[in-house]
Amino acid sequence: MIKLVAMYKTPSDIEMFEKHYFEKHMPLVEKIPGLLKSEVSKLKILPGTESEYYMMTEMYYEDMDSFNAAMATPEGKASARDIVNFAKDRVDFFIGKIK
Amino acid sequence: MIKLVAMYKTPSDIEMFEKHYFEKHMPLVEKIPGLLKSEVSKLKILPGTESEYYMMTEMYYEDMDSFNAAMATPEGKASARDIVNFAKDRVDFFIGKIK
Repeated sequence: MIKLVAMYKTPSDIEMFEKHYFEKHMPLVEKIPGLLKSEVSKLKILPGTESEYYMMTEMYYEDMDSFNAAMATPEGKASARDIVNFAKDRVDFFIGKIK
Repeated sequence: MIKLVAMYKTPSDIEMFEKHYFEKHMPLVEKIPGLLKSEVSKLKILPGTESEYYMMTEMYYEDMDSFNAAMATPEGKASARDIVNFAKDRVDFFIGKIK
């Protein structure tokens, strides 16, 4: 199994970000074919950590082929296109390969 | 449920890091009372992301009380003490509150 990990930096307007994220963005994500599960976590940075991250979302897929196919669907593209509406330049993405 | 998220930066000696991590550190982590599950992911950074992270481990606990109690046990302390042996100054920690 693999996962797409989105790490969001603290937004300038948290209320607006969260409204968009939970009311608009996650419903788009949840429609993506092949998505097995997702997990959203609000982050608290522990002492000693230098980071701007405040939220993390993990989106699980069977494998990279399944993920790439998902991203090429209209639902995958709609979700990707929506990111600039709430997190332009404020999100880092990773592919996580689960050991 | 909450999770401790450890984000590891690329080590100078990957082979030595992984040997220590999987043979010494994870066995210590798995002994911690109250740990519900853990997930280790090797990370691949997607284009546009500026980051040094190469591995992430998530350790799940029932709640913050359970996590704090776990960290105060001999097993929790042994695991925390071991971090300097393989990832000194090369790991960031977050507490994730799952939505």
